[in-house]
Amino acid sequence: MKILVIHGPNLNLLGRREKEIYGDVTLDEINETLKRRFPKINFHFFQSNTEGEIIDELHTAIDGDYEGVIINPAAYSHYSYAIRDAIAAVTCPVIEVHISNTHRREGFRSHSVTAGTCAGQIVGFGELSYVLAVDVLLHKKNKH
Amino acid sequence: MKILVIHGPNLNLLGRREKEIYGDVTLDEINETLKRRFPKINFHFFQSNTEGEIIDELHTAIDGDYEGVIINPAAYSHYSYAIRDAIAAVTCPVIEVHISNTHRREGFRSHSVTAGTCAGQIVGFGELSYVLAVDVLLHKKNKH
Amino acid sequence: MKILVIHGPNLNLLGRREKEIYGDVTLDEINETLKRRFPKINFHFFQSNTEGEIIDELHTAIDGDYEGVIINPAAYSHYSYAIRDAIAAVTCPVIEVHISNTHRREGFRSHSVTAGTCAGQIVGFGELSYVLAVDVLLHKKNKH
Amino acid sequence: MKILVIHGPNLNLLGRREKEIYGDVTLDEINETLKRRFPKINFHFFQSNTEGEIIDELHTAIDGDYEGVIINPAAYSHYSYAIRDAIAAVTCPVIEVHISNTHRREGFRSHSVTAGTCAGQIVGFGELSYVLAVDVLLHKKNKH
Amino acid sequence: MKILVIHGPNLNLLGRREKEIYGDVTLDEINETLKRRFPKINFHFFQSNTEGEIIDELHTAIDGDYEGVIINPAAYSHYSYAIRDAIAAVTCPVIEVHISNTHRREGFRSHSVTAGTCAGQIVGFGELSYVLAVDVLLHKKNKH
Amino acid sequence: MKILVIHGPNLNLLGRREKEIYGDVTLDEINETLKRRFPKINFHFFQSNTEGEIIDELHTAIDGDYEGVIINPAAYSHYSYAIRDAIAAVTCPVIEVHISNTHRREGFRSHSVTAGTCAGQIVGFGELSYVLAVDVLLHKKNKH
Amino acid sequence: MKILVIHGPNLNLLGRREKEIYGDVTLDEINETLKRRFPKINFHFFQSNTEGEIIDELHTAIDGDYEGVIINPAAYSHYSYAIRDAIAAVTCPVIEVHISNTHRREGFRSHSVTAGTCAGQIVGFGELSYVLAVDVLLHKKNKH
Amino acid sequence: MKILVIHGPNLNLLGRREKEIYGDVTLDEINETLKRRFPKINFHFFQSNTEGEIIDELHTAIDGDYEGVIINPAAYSHYSYAIRDAIAAVTCPVIEVHISNTHRREGFRSHSVTAGTCAGQIVGFGELSYVLAVDVLLHKKNKH
Amino acid sequence: MKILVIHGPNLNLLGRREKEIYGDVTLDEINETLKRRFPKINFHFFQSNTEGEIIDELHTAIDGDYEGVIINPAAYSHYSYAIRDAIAAVTCPVIEVHISNTHRREGFRSHSVTAGTCAGQIVGFGELSYVLAVDVLLHKKNKH
Amino acid sequence: MKILVIHGPNLNLLGRREKEIYGDVTLDEINETLKRRFPKINFHFFQSNTEGEIIDELHTAIDGDYEGVIINPAAYSHYSYAIRDAIAAVTCPVIEVHISNTHRREGFRSHSVTAGTCAGQIVGFGELSYVLAVDVLLHKKNKH
Amino acid sequence: MKILVIHGPNLNLLGRREKEIYGDVTLDEINETLKRRFPKINFHFFQSNTEGEIIDELHTAIDGDYEGVIINPAAYSHYSYAIRDAIAAVTCPVIEVHISNTHRREGFRSHSVTAGTCAGQIVGFGELSYVLAVDVLLHKKNKH
Amino acid sequence: MKILVIHGPNLNLLGRREKEIYGDVTLDEINETLKRRFPKINFHFFQSNTEGEIIDELHTAIDGDYEGVIINPAAYSHYSYAIRDAIAAVTCPVIEVHISNTHRREGFRSHSVTAGTCAGQIVGFGELSYVLAVDVLLHKKNKH
Repeated sequence: MKILVIHGPNLNLLGRREKEIYGDVTLDEINETLKRRFPKINFHFFQSNTEGEIIDELHTAIDGDYEGVIINPAAYSHYSYAIRDAIAAVTCPVIEVHISNTHRREGFRSHSVTAGTCAGQIVGFGELSYVLAVDVLLHKKNKH
Repeated sequence: MKILVIHGPNLNLLGRREKEIYGDVTLDEINETLKRRFPKINFHFFQSNTEGEIIDELHTAIDGDYEGVIINPAAYSHYSYAIRDAIAAVTCPVIEVHISNTHRREGFRSHSVTAGTCAGQIVGFGELSYVLAVDVLLHKKNKH
Repeated sequence: MKILVIHGPNLNLLGRREKEIYGDVTLDEINETLKRRFPKINFHFFQSNTEGEIIDELHTAIDGDYEGVIINPAAYSHYSYAIRDAIAAVTCPVIEVHISNTHRREGFRSHSVTAGTCAGQIVGFGELSYVLAVDVLLHKKNKH
Repeated sequence: MKILVIHGPNLNLLGRREKEIYGDVTLDEINETLKRRFPKINFHFFQSNTEGEIIDELHTAIDGDYEGVIINPAAYSHYSYAIRDAIAAVTCPVIEVHISNTHRREGFRSHSVTAGTCAGQIVGFGELSYVLAVDVLLHKKNKH
Repeated sequence: MKILVIHGPNLNLLGRREKEIYGDVTLDEINETLKRRFPKINFHFFQSNTEGEIIDELHTAIDGDYEGVIINPAAYSHYSYAIRDAIAAVTCPVIEVHISNTHRREGFRSHSVTAGTCAGQIVGFGELSYVLAVDVLLHKKNKH
Repeated sequence: MKILVIHGPNLNLLGRREKEIYGDVTLDEINETLKRRFPKINFHFFQSNTEGEIIDELHTAIDGDYEGVIINPAAYSHYSYAIRDAIAAVTCPVIEVHISNTHRREGFRSHSVTAGTCAGQIVGFGELSYVLAVDVLLHKKNKH
Repeated sequence: MKILVIHGPNLNLLGRREKEIYGDVTLDEINETLKRRFPKINFHFFQSNTEGEIIDELHTAIDGDYEGVIINPAAYSHYSYAIRDAIAAVTCPVIEVHISNTHRREGFRSHSVTAGTCAGQIVGFGELSYVLAVDVLLHKKNKH
Repeated sequence: MKILVIHGPNLNLLGRREKEIYGDVTLDEINETLKRRFPKINFHFFQSNTEGEIIDELHTAIDGDYEGVIINPAAYSHYSYAIRDAIAAVTCPVIEVHISNTHRREGFRSHSVTAGTCAGQIVGFGELSYVLAVDVLLHKKNKH
Repeated sequence: MKILVIHGPNLNLLGRREKEIYGDVTLDEINETLKRRFPKINFHFFQSNTEGEIIDELHTAIDGDYEGVIINPAAYSHYSYAIRDAIAAVTCPVIEVHISNTHRREGFRSHSVTAGTCAGQIVGFGELSYVLAVDVLLHKKNKH
Repeated sequence: MKILVIHGPNLNLLGRREKEIYGDVTLDEINETLKRRFPKINFHFFQSNTEGEIIDELHTAIDGDYEGVIINPAAYSHYSYAIRDAIAAVTCPVIEVHISNTHRREGFRSHSVTAGTCAGQIVGFGELSYVLAVDVLLHKKNKH
Repeated sequence: MKILVIHGPNLNLLGRREKEIYGDVTLDEINETLKRRFPKINFHFFQSNTEGEIIDELHTAIDGDYEGVIINPAAYSHYSYAIRDAIAAVTCPVIEVHISNTHRREGFRSHSVTAGTCAGQIVGFGELSYVLAVDVLLHKKNKH
Repeated sequence: MKILVIHGPNLNLLGRREKEIYGDVTLDEINETLKRRFPKINFHFFQSNTEGEIIDELHTAIDGDYEGVIINPAAYSHYSYAIRDAIAAVTCPVIEVHISNTHRREGFRSHSVTAGTCAGQIVGFGELSYVLAVDVLLHKKNKH
């Protein structure tokens, strides 16, 4: 089973910036956690601060061999209709995750323009948000 | 370990109404799934269509022996500031879940006034949304 | 033929409060008028000021033996997405009625969030609004 | 007893266009239904696609011998403040009717600028909306 | 000197409807007042309830022999961008007048989409609004 | 003299939750303070988290023997048009009180839909808000 | 006959600033024009850039010997609810005038919060706006 | 092949008014251009300033022998839901054209309520907008 | 004990204007009432129609010998961010009072930009609003 | 003659995703169509999902040897003020095209922030939208 | 070289109030800093809490001998269209400064209605904001 | 001392495009000015049209050896929440600069979503905006 994990803008800073909001776990540690918890899954991890590169990466999941995509669009959630369109084109399930509870923060963070083309959304549980998203993909696979 | 599970308005109809949106699993089946998957957890299930009764039930989780609350406020998510206040008073973690992907539906469903006082939100995975919420609570317990 | 008639919040005060808006006919008189005008119909009348009890009552009309529901959601028309969802689940036709012409009054009364899941809406004709709603239900039955 | 029935823009197409929304009854059939159901009433039927002609026709009901006006302003409901003003000037009761349930359709159809100067509004019952409006006018006459 | 006076929708009812708002002077009396007060001016009076006919009439003032236009667009002031465009094309000064003080009434009446292409606006003085508009046109002529 | 005191949703938690906002006085202590300060007044205290029960209780003050009602609608202030309608029906003066200064908090708390049908509003003085409301009612009684 | 003429903020600059908008007539020239055109009227001219002084001056026209007030609130038209309240208190007619056509300029200038408590409004005719306002006051006096 | 070309309000003035916006080509010249460029097509040209007449004309293209309609609704694009409905009823393709680039002008011109029921929209190319629309219709015919 | 009482714009007219809204008590009478009811308190009364003078006066309560400020900002409540800032700087408690129930009146009066920097707000009780505010200040003093 | 054709985000997927909206023609086929239909024109085709690369490419058309640019900004139309600015800098005509009729789809697609700095816009005709844009550029060249 | 420095409402409190926002430098110290740093410049310092006095002072810079104006409108930035108009009339450059970063604070502070008629704006650098504004004026003088 | 200077989208065109807005100074000339005016400072200049590359560059200033960042986000100021987040992570002061006065231009340019996480903002002074920003950074360094 192959899963694509996309980390959006500024997530490469995890564990380094604003720890009171995002916690002190680094992005590498999140990726390691996923690999350790799901040793049979072949993860492809991708991080970019560039909207277009995230779209390019999402396109690799069209008619491909991934069985699911986990994406944390970070700030792009709130305005990137281009990423929204890319998600809509993906042919396996896409799950949106957020590390912090976006509903507790500035007003603009309470609305996601990308979640509407995903299968669902997991918000506010730190690295666990990613783990749960893998659980969803495993569950969806087993149902078929 | 004791967990309170609150199902909001019209969720007693699950599996009977609008199956194309909510699926064909009934509320009893969701509760049974939770008990079967987590046999060591003592669940207290509660369903009500009345905002005030949901608030009353949330109050039982203040300074009580629950280690977490899972709430699906259903339509109340979109306007019940009273439930929002009740969640803010709960002293163990509260997790908001939704069965359908509210971001794909009518505009009014894309905003939750209750999620901001929860620990986080899980949206769109059917009964699995509840299962994942239990996972979060287990994880939070283990961290302490 | 069996019809459920639901009167929403504050309608128990009809004929007692703000007569210049709602007229001087009481709720009992409305119910009596319906029974007298439609002697062959078996009416079940229900009044509650509680949103959740109105939802509970609406649920009795799912897969039941009612051939129609008449509901005056009163103030709940303007914000109760929970009642909206309950109406959507009812399997016989639901008709929304209002006694006063809500379009002539405060701005917030000009929009109904519940009418969109009803079969239609009758606004502004006092107790006659209810009588006409019965006519619609009779007509819909005869067409089948 | 004399009643003026005004059909607004595009209603001449009834039964020809978008039957999934408006049904397959033609305007002539609606008029015939009214004459057949109310043989003692002298109906004057008027259809126009022109806002100004609808206003002109409404003016014939000022200080005239009509005992009521039934108007389906169709799309003009949503922006014609000029028709709103004309209705306000009519000295007998004016009732607004709609064939489809406007609350179920595009957002702009959920608000009527004309209903506020009518006696009331009947929405969503096909040709029956017109029949009920006549019932209201008969009722209002009998009360006097 | 030749002046075109355009009375918009429902103004033919002046003195007959809603006298508490519009007063009891009729449209003919307004026209007579203008002729009596300005005997040397050749007035052309025009009233229509139809937006398009008002536009047609405005077009007669392009490159014509009128030295000014006085228009009371009534309810069309609040939404007729088509009349706005027609006024912009007129080559002599156009003055917008209103009989009642539109700023005291329903919210939608406080904004005029047509005034921005006129030379100016006179609001709230009954028939005197028209008289003052003639004064403006006389003044503008004398300045040239 | 008899006064009805209605405490809205979550106020049963006073002194237990969010003390930095609401202070550490309990609801019982507020009620005791009122009885101690106004020993000649017969208070009826009522607390409910349910909108409909608050409406039911308000109805007991119609044509009854209360000389005033003090209501703290808490979160319902911001959306309950049903409570607004119930207050409008009460025949003795109704005074809205809030413990915290709602204008200092989240944006949604700065608007009250219920205050418009009350006699007045007292905001931000803790239990003293209730005491002052009694003073108003005493004053209003003495004026008659 | 005595008339109070109030010139609002920045009008002391007339003829000196932004002549393409306001023309090259100075404030003194406007005042002289009024005196020359209406030699029998006793004008009291007042200019201030201070909202409160304009209010103070308006108060002199309560129960006083003025038979009318002409006010050009300039920029205060768009936000001074305090001047609006002062105008409402004046016991003789108050007429709002503007030199430029505010409807042609920045969006914020198209709405006047003060006009709703005036008798009417004259917009866009330079110094003639003031002359016409005197005409209205003369007319109103003669009617009595 | 037969095509209906509808020119909306004020377009009869083309080449006469506001040439800096609309250019100096007249409506007759546009029509001549179309006939000259497409000599085999039978054009029916129609211009009206009246919303209702435009609707009447659109109705002639229902179940008729036109293979396409080209409409420039001019200012009606921005508010005529009645024309929107008429276009929806037309059974051959309808193409909306504009002479000027509406997106460069006043804010209200950037939204078209009629384009949503057309096949597509061509904006900003002067008379060429019409020529391109014919190209589309030819193309659509050839595809069948 | 020393208290500063600030009366905002137009309040010098109390008892003279719009008595149906503000009652017939004059400002002097309110001041006398306060002095009579609280003979031991040293009141400094201040009234101004000028925003800046109100700010100047508020500044006298910074690090001064007042133990509280009572302010009725009248219309300035709805837009004076400058007074809001001045209140925030005052080092003793500031209480906002209104004579009429602002929530019952025009929409713009339902929001106060100044209340958020006050200790609390008392709305709608005529001169009693001031008396209650003194009670609050006495209470606050006694607590320390 | 040299023309730059820019395809925005996700357009590389044409013919592969959401064919019910975008049709089954691929991007290569569109490019081939243009080359085949206009064999004398030297097209430079460019596709990118990255906003900044689209801007870079647009810059190549400043003071360059292109005689026109055709751009389909896709989702970037709705929020990329940066592309808007880049288009404004281009010294040859830029034409915006869309394959689907954006006015028929989600609300956010009905507004283009980029069209205002283009020469014009062609919406809804599939690959033909591009062909027509070339026609416009040819026409513009011939006029010079 | 002569420069006018205008300090708006509440700035006389600098160094005394809300030091966590505005710092602990007093207004006198800011003025001293300017004089010390630019000994050859003749500064005229002015502070007022009154909108009208600020306008009066701005008028002294019309056709005067100032070579620049530095204004900190403080809270008036957010609503004083009257100051905006006064700045527009000033014939030398006007620069708006703010001590705190208004974009980090309450929402209403993120928009300035006065900056649009200034030459530019410097926000968030404490007393240095003023120093930089002098640098700009020196630079502008040297360019001429 | 080391300073990072980031120029956002389209700024590479400075001096080439829209000179009436941005002036005729090129980007290279701005950079040269900074180096010439501050010979002891080690500037790193960076320009990109790509949001993600700007974010990447901002990340180099986290825990790095820069003592300040100057950023002109150009159009990205108005919607890039991703750049906003990147600025928030930078550990030395970040200053936002704009060449033109954004408050004088299209409405969308009057709001910056990035300024709230900067230390401050300098708007409207051409290349001098950058020079002043360096002054701020020097000043901030000297204070430590």
